Amino acid sequence: MDFRPSRLLQEVRSFRPLVHHITNYVTVNDCANMCICAGGSPVMTDGEDVVDMVALASSTVLNIGTLNSRTVASMEMAASEASARGIPMVLDPVGAGATPYRTEVSTMLMGMSPSVIKGNAGEIGVLSGLGGEVRGVDSGGSEDIAEAVRSLAENRGCIVAASGPVDYFSDGRVVVSLSNGSDLLGKVSGTGCMLSSVVGCYVGACGPSMESVCGAITALNVAAELAEGRCSGPGSFKVALLDCMDSLSPEDLDSRARWEVL
Amino acid sequence: MDFRPSRLLQEVRSFRPLVHHITNYVTVNDCANMCICAGGSPVMTDGEDVVDMVALASSTVLNIGTLNSRTVASMEMAASEASARGIPMVLDPVGAGATPYRTEVSTMLMGMSPSVIKGNAGEIGVLSGLGGEVRGVDSGGSEDIAEAVRSLAENRGCIVAASGPVDYFSDGRVVVSLSNGSDLLGKVSGTGCMLSSVVGCYVGACGPSMESVCGAITALNVAAELAEGRCSGPGSFKVALLDCMDSLSPEDLDSRARWEVL
Amino acid sequence: MDFRPSRLLQEVRSFRPLVHHITNYVTVNDCANMCICAGGSPVMTDGEDVVDMVALASSTVLNIGTLNSRTVASMEMAASEASARGIPMVLDPVGAGATPYRTEVSTMLMGMSPSVIKGNAGEIGVLSGLGGEVRGVDSGGSEDIAEAVRSLAENRGCIVAASGPVDYFSDGRVVVSLSNGSDLLGKVSGTGCMLSSVVGCYVGACGPSMESVCGAITALNVAAELAEGRCSGPGSFKVALLDCMDSLSPEDLDSRARWEVL
Repeated sequence: MDFRPSRLLQEVRSFRPLVHHITNYVTVNDCANMCICAGGSPVMTDGEDVVDMVALASSTVLNIGTLNSRTVASMEMAASEASARGIPMVLDPVGAGATPYRTEVSTMLMGMSPSVIKGNAGEIGVLSGLGGEVRGVDSGGSEDIAEAVRSLAENRGCIVAASGPVDYFSDGRVVVSLSNGSDLLGKVSGTGCMLSSVVGCYVGACGPSMESVCGAITALNVAAELAEGRCSGPGSFKVALLDCMDSLSPEDLDSRARWEVL
Repeated sequence: MDFRPSRLLQEVRSFRPLVHHITNYVTVNDCANMCICAGGSPVMTDGEDVVDMVALASSTVLNIGTLNSRTVASMEMAASEASARGIPMVLDPVGAGATPYRTEVSTMLMGMSPSVIKGNAGEIGVLSGLGGEVRGVDSGGSEDIAEAVRSLAENRGCIVAASGPVDYFSDGRVVVSLSNGSDLLGKVSGTGCMLSSVVGCYVGACGPSMESVCGAITALNVAAELAEGRCSGPGSFKVALLDCMDSLSPEDLDSRARWEVL
Repeated sequence: MDFRPSRLLQEVRSFRPLVHHITNYVTVNDCANMCICAGGSPVMTDGEDVVDMVALASSTVLNIGTLNSRTVASMEMAASEASARGIPMVLDPVGAGATPYRTEVSTMLMGMSPSVIKGNAGEIGVLSGLGGEVRGVDSGGSEDIAEAVRSLAENRGCIVAASGPVDYFSDGRVVVSLSNGSDLLGKVSGTGCMLSSVVGCYVGACGPSMESVCGAITALNVAAELAEGRCSGPGSFKVALLDCMDSLSPEDLDSRARWEVL
């Protein structure tokens, strides 16, 4: 993987992808603002005009955090339109494994040609069939997350990423680990959702590739490292995270990025 | 237009209008907090008791940011009750022009006697019939926004405002431009929605007039100028915007206001 | 009441209760983040898997801030499952008394064995039958809130708390008042909702008792006192409130707690 995160950062900022979301009502505002700070333009719609809006978008992000039958039907329409038009779709299977309904909906949407599946270690463990623990919507860890991302990516023919203290992603052949970030990401609701929005920006602007996913995760995690030095706790960390994402310099990004092909 | 923004500010703060909202789930929290900082008391309901709540309110703000058939039906009931009782209604046609559904719903609600239609330049351009570009829910500019607000206001018999780097509003005869504000308003999701909530406070406390709309826009934009000097990016700007709106002094407001009758 | 707030604080942090919520879309993000900062793990679901999620939870918080027929049906299912499993349920009857629908739904849910009913003075006044004023969803005060909490607690066989400049709560026999807090709590939307989430953490970790409710209210109010010294207005107060809740020390909590058995 030939990877320069700064090149992708500049591409996203100059392209300004329109990123459609159907996401949960808990963290949606942070997703919208993170999308802007990452260089994108967010649009959230899950009603009667969802198909028309997806058609205009550079990518669509489907996050099942607060799913119900109405929004699941909208996600299905969004996925179908995205697939028909070749618009990259990012799936965030929040809480898969916690309840049968979440696992079923995640499995259904995994069958609709996502470009990227981005969960936490527990969710990806469950969806890969290799196990894992899921408690509520937070991750409980996984025995072998590197193998889980590889295996799920191979089976589904897409890129799979698992966020955690160390992040892993794979296209089914290569597995990459990233070790940037901050413990404070785990003290703020929705940092995983925000990451999915950033992935939406990168695949929307640069296409669905290992490099795009790597660039998105690296950008958020380096911003988190910078934000950690500017805050007094989880509340001010979230504020600083947005500031640091917006002002992220290509130099900081390239010099701080710590990724490794396994 | 005989206009002293400080007089309106004090009137809103002492009246403390109850501002009912049916708004999108993306920026609703910021709307609620901005409403409080502007001097109002927000209430959000779109369910079975919407008509009862509108009846208690000083004004109602209808924002179609994340519309669906259920909430559109609620907006129709809210608009009808507001109209029957002479309660000012503020319409924010988010994304009009981006999808046919948004344009249709905006047109339907424009026919239900809004007191103020407040959009961005692109939305107002489309709704005025004079054109404009809309990309997702963000404005793409308009050839002649001054003429668009005037023409739409004349046709609909209400006040029309278009926000942007320069804001314009009109009652169909006079057009006023305002040049306060900050570029950072464009880097935060929902500053347009927050402005609609502030307009709701002003028309709720002082009645639907050109002065009320001018006072609302000026208050938010002067707060934005002050916030710009106290922040390190979009995240901290939003926090400072609320602080500065809450502590806005009559003197700052009058001395900084830059408006012009065209 | 034998009460050491620091003991409860440490119990909540080490237990890390999973707190299920069905709450309003206005303040839900702040509830999630406050829950984390208080030591819990939040999960929000109101869709098809609500019963399965409640079954996994340490407690459930039902807040009717933006109720509609769909979410009320979900609350009924959640309450029923919680009751069957002996999982503590916290009811926040937002806006009870403001509209007949809110009063009806609150009354229905009060009949489903809540462990704690937590409202503002106006809501509790109305639900106790002793009167009170409710304007929108904000409290308008009550003649005798101490008697209202006692009487409602006695009638419903649960703990009832009324938040306000002074907070009161009762199990139907004893009434306790707490005088910690900050005026800025009244300038931020949803601080009452956040308190209900904190109560959910405490009853989820320590069981539904007077001590748990006292511990929750004290923790939030002491955090508010500390946050008041670190902010420049309502926007930065909310950020600091989360920071201070997360870093709350047992010593600060015990030395600052001001409660009194009436």
